[in-house]
Amino acid sequence: MINRKLPTIWYGGDYNPDQWPEAIWHEDMALFQKAGINIVTLPVFSWAKLQPSEDVYSFEWLDKLLDLIEQNGIYACLATSTAAQPAWMSRKYPEVLPVDIDGRKRSHGSRVNFCPNSETYRYYSTRLAEKLAERYGSHPALLIWHIGNEYGPHCYCDQCASAFRVWLQKKYQTIEEVNKQWNMSFWGHTVYDWEEIVPPTNLNGDNRCFQSMTLDYKRFMSDSILACYQGEYDAVKRITPELPVTTNIWGLFNGLDLHTWGKHMDVVSWDSYPQMNEPMCNVAMRHDYMRGLKDGQPFMLMEQTPSQQNWQPYNSLKRPGVMRLWSYQAVARGADTVMFFQLRRSFGACEKYHGAVIEHVGHEETRVFRECAQLGAELKELGDTLLDSRLESKVALLFDIDTWNAIEITSGPNVDLNYASQAQKYYKAFYDMNVGVDVISPLSDLSGYQLVVAPVFYMLKPGVAERVKSFVEQGGTFVTTFFSGIVNENDLVTLGGYPGELRGLLGIWVEEIDSLPPELKNRIIVETPFGHVTGEYACGMLCDLLHLEGATSLAVYGDDFYAGMPVLTENAYGKGKAYYVATDADERFISDLCASLCDQLGLAAPLRADSGIELTQRHKDGKTFTFVLNHNKQQASVHLNKRAYRDLLSRSEYAPESAVTLAAYGVMILEEV
Amino acid sequence: MINRKLPTIWYGGDYNPDQWPEAIWHEDMALFQKAGINIVTLPVFSWAKLQPSEDVYSFEWLDKLLDLIEQNGIYACLATSTAAQPAWMSRKYPEVLPVDIDGRKRSHGSRVNFCPNSETYRYYSTRLAEKLAERYGSHPALLIWHIGNEYGPHCYCDQCASAFRVWLQKKYQTIEEVNKQWNMSFWGHTVYDWEEIVPPTNLNGDNRCFQSMTLDYKRFMSDSILACYQGEYDAVKRITPELPVTTNIWGLFNGLDLHTWGKHMDVVSWDSYPQMNEPMCNVAMRHDYMRGLKDGQPFMLMEQTPSQQNWQPYNSLKRPGVMRLWSYQAVARGADTVMFFQLRRSFGACEKYHGAVIEHVGHEETRVFRECAQLGAELKELGDTLLDSRLESKVALLFDIDTWNAIEITSGPNVDLNYASQAQKYYKAFYDMNVGVDVISPLSDLSGYQLVVAPVFYMLKPGVAERVKSFVEQGGTFVTTFFSGIVNENDLVTLGGYPGELRGLLGIWVEEIDSLPPELKNRIIVETPFGHVTGEYACGMLCDLLHLEGATSLAVYGDDFYAGMPVLTENAYGKGKAYYVATDADERFISDLCASLCDQLGLAAPLRADSGIELTQRHKDGKTFTFVLNHNKQQASVHLNKRAYRDLLSRSEYAPESAVTLAAYGVMILEEV
Amino acid sequence: MINRKLPTIWYGGDYNPDQWPEAIWHEDMALFQKAGINIVTLPVFSWAKLQPSEDVYSFEWLDKLLDLIEQNGIYACLATSTAAQPAWMSRKYPEVLPVDIDGRKRSHGSRVNFCPNSETYRYYSTRLAEKLAERYGSHPALLIWHIGNEYGPHCYCDQCASAFRVWLQKKYQTIEEVNKQWNMSFWGHTVYDWEEIVPPTNLNGDNRCFQSMTLDYKRFMSDSILACYQGEYDAVKRITPELPVTTNIWGLFNGLDLHTWGKHMDVVSWDSYPQMNEPMCNVAMRHDYMRGLKDGQPFMLMEQTPSQQNWQPYNSLKRPGVMRLWSYQAVARGADTVMFFQLRRSFGACEKYHGAVIEHVGHEETRVFRECAQLGAELKELGDTLLDSRLESKVALLFDIDTWNAIEITSGPNVDLNYASQAQKYYKAFYDMNVGVDVISPLSDLSGYQLVVAPVFYMLKPGVAERVKSFVEQGGTFVTTFFSGIVNENDLVTLGGYPGELRGLLGIWVEEIDSLPPELKNRIIVETPFGHVTGEYACGMLCDLLHLEGATSLAVYGDDFYAGMPVLTENAYGKGKAYYVATDADERFISDLCASLCDQLGLAAPLRADSGIELTQRHKDGKTFTFVLNHNKQQASVHLNKRAYRDLLSRSEYAPESAVTLAAYGVMILEEV
Repeated sequence: MINRKLPTIWYGGDYNPDQWPEAIWHEDMALFQKAGINIVTLPVFSWAKLQPSEDVYSFEWLDKLLDLIEQNGIYACLATSTAAQPAWMSRKYPEVLPVDIDGRKRSHGSRVNFCPNSETYRYYSTRLAEKLAERYGSHPALLIWHIGNEYGPHCYCDQCASAFRVWLQKKYQTIEEVNKQWNMSFWGHTVYDWEEIVPPTNLNGDNRCFQSMTLDYKRFMSDSILACYQGEYDAVKRITPELPVTTNIWGLFNGLDLHTWGKHMDVVSWDSYPQMNEPMCNVAMRHDYMRGLKDGQPFMLMEQTPSQQNWQPYNSLKRPGVMRLWSYQAVARGADTVMFFQLRRSFGACEKYHGAVIEHVGHEETRVFRECAQLGAELKELGDTLLDSRLESKVALLFDIDTWNAIEITSGPNVDLNYASQAQKYYKAFYDMNVGVDVISPLSDLSGYQLVVAPVFYMLKPGVAERVKSFVEQGGTFVTTFFSGIVNENDLVTLGGYPGELRGLLGIWVEEIDSLPPELKNRIIVETPFGHVTGEYACGMLCDLLHLEGATSLAVYGDDFYAGMPVLTENAYGKGKAYYVATDADERFISDLCASLCDQLGLAAPLRADSGIELTQRHKDGKTFTFVLNHNKQQASVHLNKRAYRDLLSRSEYAPESAVTLAAYGVMILEEV
Repeated sequence: MINRKLPTIWYGGDYNPDQWPEAIWHEDMALFQKAGINIVTLPVFSWAKLQPSEDVYSFEWLDKLLDLIEQNGIYACLATSTAAQPAWMSRKYPEVLPVDIDGRKRSHGSRVNFCPNSETYRYYSTRLAEKLAERYGSHPALLIWHIGNEYGPHCYCDQCASAFRVWLQKKYQTIEEVNKQWNMSFWGHTVYDWEEIVPPTNLNGDNRCFQSMTLDYKRFMSDSILACYQGEYDAVKRITPELPVTTNIWGLFNGLDLHTWGKHMDVVSWDSYPQMNEPMCNVAMRHDYMRGLKDGQPFMLMEQTPSQQNWQPYNSLKRPGVMRLWSYQAVARGADTVMFFQLRRSFGACEKYHGAVIEHVGHEETRVFRECAQLGAELKELGDTLLDSRLESKVALLFDIDTWNAIEITSGPNVDLNYASQAQKYYKAFYDMNVGVDVISPLSDLSGYQLVVAPVFYMLKPGVAERVKSFVEQGGTFVTTFFSGIVNENDLVTLGGYPGELRGLLGIWVEEIDSLPPELKNRIIVETPFGHVTGEYACGMLCDLLHLEGATSLAVYGDDFYAGMPVLTENAYGKGKAYYVATDADERFISDLCASLCDQLGLAAPLRADSGIELTQRHKDGKTFTFVLNHNKQQASVHLNKRAYRDLLSRSEYAPESAVTLAAYGVMILEEV
Repeated sequence: MINRKLPTIWYGGDYNPDQWPEAIWHEDMALFQKAGINIVTLPVFSWAKLQPSEDVYSFEWLDKLLDLIEQNGIYACLATSTAAQPAWMSRKYPEVLPVDIDGRKRSHGSRVNFCPNSETYRYYSTRLAEKLAERYGSHPALLIWHIGNEYGPHCYCDQCASAFRVWLQKKYQTIEEVNKQWNMSFWGHTVYDWEEIVPPTNLNGDNRCFQSMTLDYKRFMSDSILACYQGEYDAVKRITPELPVTTNIWGLFNGLDLHTWGKHMDVVSWDSYPQMNEPMCNVAMRHDYMRGLKDGQPFMLMEQTPSQQNWQPYNSLKRPGVMRLWSYQAVARGADTVMFFQLRRSFGACEKYHGAVIEHVGHEETRVFRECAQLGAELKELGDTLLDSRLESKVALLFDIDTWNAIEITSGPNVDLNYASQAQKYYKAFYDMNVGVDVISPLSDLSGYQLVVAPVFYMLKPGVAERVKSFVEQGGTFVTTFFSGIVNENDLVTLGGYPGELRGLLGIWVEEIDSLPPELKNRIIVETPFGHVTGEYACGMLCDLLHLEGATSLAVYGDDFYAGMPVLTENAYGKGKAYYVATDADERFISDLCASLCDQLGLAAPLRADSGIELTQRHKDGKTFTFVLNHNKQQASVHLNKRAYRDLLSRSEYAPESAVTLAAYGVMILEEV
């Protein structure tokens, strides 16, 4: 459990009482209780109120608040409030303000608008965290620390440039090594002095000329920002070693090296804001990715909106039942909390049109409040039943932030290549089959999996190829695609023939990589039917022209001068098999391929269900909880197996082999009877 | 009359003789006379010539010019020439150069490129106006002062930041009040010192984080620029108190608070540059808006092009007859002048492809010149007949610059919401029926109207709600729409339920606001036919989910989870009625609704006419002048009523009940015989 | 010959051994020999390696390299390596870094990222060139000097501003003349002191307000950059007067005044990177343009890719045979070299996905290498047969960089007007007929031509009109189009009626210019059939409304208020004829018109060929070499005339009147037997 003091699914969210008069606080308490809210996150943005000037701290209002929530049986996710420094600080110490990638010195305002290498920022943010820990470390309402908020933006100021040079010295020791690892002899960029290195910005012409440098700068920025977080982490941990610490992540975000960050968080938390009409498989993948940041440990859903967002182009209301459905989806994929931004809707500034549990009308007689209260009651009923239960997946999808960044900044071969989309395409195939997937780093332990999928396995860091080979050798099944094994961790090409270190494992040599515009397509012609993979499929974007070096060709290109060349290959390696998909295949091909592999490996959905129903399982103490989530706007059915089940939510029981119908957006959590 | 010295419709325009040798001036005079031109605007951009260095003024060339035009029977709209400061000033006093919203210090060049809070700019611009007044105040050719030119761009420099703080101190007195009125506790933006306030620019990340601050900055900028204008105004007025003063407005422009500006102008003038293929109702609305800036007083059409523009993507020629038609449209809607940019076409720099009365060929044997001369002759014939006549409208459309800005900078709920477009949609319904509309500020006197329409009445300033309630109480009819009554003048939400202060008047409570992307629509299903409003209509973008609190539902939504909820409501209030349109309805609905209201109130077109014919009436001394404007490319007819009419232009007389055919682009000004 | 030391078509390209260990150099030599490579360009980007600090030069590695290539029978195109200054220079002398058009000071990085008016840059770049010449001037491998690389970007820093003022003083002598030539009285921009002139940047609001100033700034920049080139040119020429000097041009590029640059190059060289799916006629036109920069003298194809590019959105492979075909196309149009970027593919930084003769796999067993080697063998066989042969064209297409720039920065009348596209449209008509065209400056000698075509002959520099008139007077045929004769060399309108100085020659007066958006079209109705020109055609964008002043109307507009006005006119002038196409006609019209003119003048393709076959002829010592290039993906045929031919490549002989079939992408070079 995240904290045994509250042994139930935490339910609540961001609360900004400092925007409201005290009289409202008491109304809030009454409403929170009606809604079943048991945790509030605060004070996320109150640094200016907590430290009105350099030498003055003011905590009395927060004392009162924490006591008030405690009196109302509510707990606190205590935020350190350091995501937006006070205006006096920006004014007195302008070096806290960042410089953007266009070289513009920023002015005070907005949030996460500080230089992560500012000593002033680090000193005062750490000091505030420390003071909060000293004052509230033993407050009975305190459950967890929340450091900063949605860390992210990068800075390119001179103090960052200096810190970058120090970071590089530590990493590479010599300037000669930098020149070598960045291939600085290209375009005559050889440097002879550390001071000659300048951050890659748009003032260089193109911040992506030297991908190796840009990647290192991104890593350095992730480390710099992490140091801000870590300063606060250490400060609160020193005083309250027993309390867990987290910070909320933006989702599938490439501005930070999240796998590293995960190691520094006691529990991962994140903010889920799907785009309008975004496929649910993408949301599911983000949950799985978050779960993977700490090896499957339950995570926190720190923010979602109860009704609508404000910063998207079109901010539709969540339809009745959808908020509940999506909340359970989070839990179904490993969340042990359901939390909102925001509990009461602001009346001014840029988030006043962001939904909240308590709307501008101020009372509970709203659809949104009613839905929140219904969910609150249900979660209360669930108690600790699900807490700490785990998902068990036999399929791993490898996903790597550095690879994402490297592909985003590459020059060539095709602007349409999007790493995250490629991962999502393969993820979707398993999602649609309701076969569970762990989304993990290529550096993770692969031994527990039967199938490892690595779409666009472009960058191979040291040891990764060996790890994958060993996985296959020992009987694992591995699938990768075009544009894999191309570069090392510094984005330098592995010479001697693509796919580099994977050439032996895959038994192929890729001689050339053709790049097609969206209007040009090729075809995949299956010569040796492979399970569901048969007939013809469309493909395009990138087409590897490959030669077999031991692998078997299952399908070939249908068109162009490389018609007849292998496009899907299988290679026996040790006790396992390695597959290569040489092109950007259509959805049907990926679906058929993944289905065939699942069949081969005996992987299947826990139950048979209509299309649009999502199924997952969490396991704990020998029990299995099967989540049944109907994402359809209409009712749909799930077909039970030979066991009898009970739904934890409705308490209904279902006989073996029965077909159970869920209402539109309906949810069940089935436990075997 | 604007000035009794020239008791006819002023006809002429911008004249830049300082770009030409003196020999050309004499040719110009001859051509002006052939064209019937009686007024020239000058010198609009001659500051550098009038003041070649800091201590030297040079007026001799202008003396000569004014004498020359006077000798030729032409009058002057004397411009103060302060829209573009001399290069020596920008060089010696760099603080006159502005800083843009991206924080970039501008360099010298272009026009209206000065900081409105520059003391240097204000000092020298006022001084030049004063010198011109001293020298030419009693010149017989002088009819009116023209201050600056197309004021507009905003500045974000440090001197503006300082002046902004002073402006805020005057408005709010205390820093606490600023924090409160801007909700600065949001995202921890509380300030403790005036110096901590920085202008909202793109260097803050998003200049629209704090809408209240951004709105205040826009108001402050409007005031700052107005102070530049006012300085010159006072200078010339001190010397020539009897002469009217104006400055030309860009049209429907949200960079200045035009209703305030109107109060400081003796006569409103504006520049009409319709976009290609822009519906004529939009142009008509701009004329009506300009007329409304000074309560219906006749205004000046200061600029229009005789043939083509240069700065639009596609600068088509005005087809034969169109320039004349559009000139009369201006008069039909309240203009007492018809003026051009420009009289002679420049031969160099960025406006050389902008049309002119005298084209590059330099003689009068051109289509454009002939059309100008024909119009000049007609206007001469009209003499003072129409001068000072007024339009009388029973319908008011409320339009507010602050609301426009607030909606433009809002974050959520729907990027497609465009305040001006919403106003145009309702305006069009009346335009198409040829029912006259005044476009006025919500702070105007409403007592003379039968029907007040306020599309997207989002922001209610102090007293406005009371004013509208009182209007309805006394028997008026009021129509407003979705997203109304939401915020106060500082863009802070009125808590307690939408539409805030209008809730009682409208008898409804809006619980939620759904936001739809363009591809999603809903339907309006009429349950209680209301005049022409019957059957079904399409709607979308924003859909209020509302509950009746006394109002009657006339129509409901047809789709989605709020199908059956009211979408058109009617509420009896005192002796009048208030209507609410809860969504962005299609054009047909708005047309049917407005037609029904007109029927109910007995409002109708002055005559029956074919589609595409615009009708207006100006009244004076008991006489009524009915303008008939055929915007069709083909001939079309107007059907007279039981009176006999004479056309002031053709002198033709028409029997009662006759159907009179106008040629394509034809115009008549009918007076009862 | 460019250099008699290597009397064959030079074959090789950019070689960057400094990115590789020495062991690889030896592999390179072996592979170069297998590929038939006889020239390498180097060191293009090695300044930092050649001059690791301000006082230290390091040439030993280059000594070794040049000796190595010489030992392997390979020659050097010796580059001066000055396109990217060392980082130490940018750091120690920040004034070498440029300021961009947005006023941003650039930081070190990328390439061609220096201020061309930096004394430091000029000093050290010239000094490096001199040192290279001193050291290698007599090296036996040295064939030619290659200065800098792809010169281009402009700078707007203060030192450029100062230099601009000096440049202007030299050009105009007095500030009054500047005011006059730039029409600075417009918008009150009159300046009184040279210091008041600031470069036209985006900080002025719009860098194109004063087109005359902007044009002069572009000319000044071209001159400034040329001075950098010239400094190096003079340095190497002083030491090696006998060696030719070049620099590689970007293609059809308007950032430099290429006709002036051509005069300063001993041989023109350029880099050919067609966009994907770009019509081959555009590539052909660029070759012809390059040939025209030095009056038909053979040029160098300095760079092309053997396989794919990296910096385009979609970097497709060149299909088998295409690299060979395009190489011969260059030769067919006047190239005496076939060179690549690059010989060995980089393993890091932004060009690692740019194709190369030696791919990342590092050996010769690739399709690309095989095709390169095949071509190398063929070129070796050709020996000096084709060297110094010339094309002979009877058609000239006038193309002018200043006109291009003037139209690009014009404000009005139509944003869709693209000068280069207009030239390409007319070029295509001749290309499709296989009638040779010289693409030359309007200031070139026209006496050798029968037909001169000047699409959008917008700007007439001093003497150009006279030159064209004299050409027609003496029997030439001249064709021009809408928007011609409008301005003088400073973009000031020629007053008195369009098309200005061409009015007499063309026998027309253009009264107005209508501008249409893409969705509006007009029609050309042929009243007097003119060869193939008959019936109706579509037209649009710009439509001149013109009156005949001696010319004959051949066709009229079909629509709009100017229906019936002439749109195609013919005017007899002296012994010749001048044609005017008053609008942007469709492709079919231009094709029919050009075909008719060719028929009239007896101009025809050298042979009859299927569509998609390109034919050119090079002549030398009484011999004619006919290039037959099949751009089709399928086989196609050429039909011989009454002569017998031999193909230099296959050595096949063909009987008179035979139809010879070429394979897809096939090439023949026919010589009469």
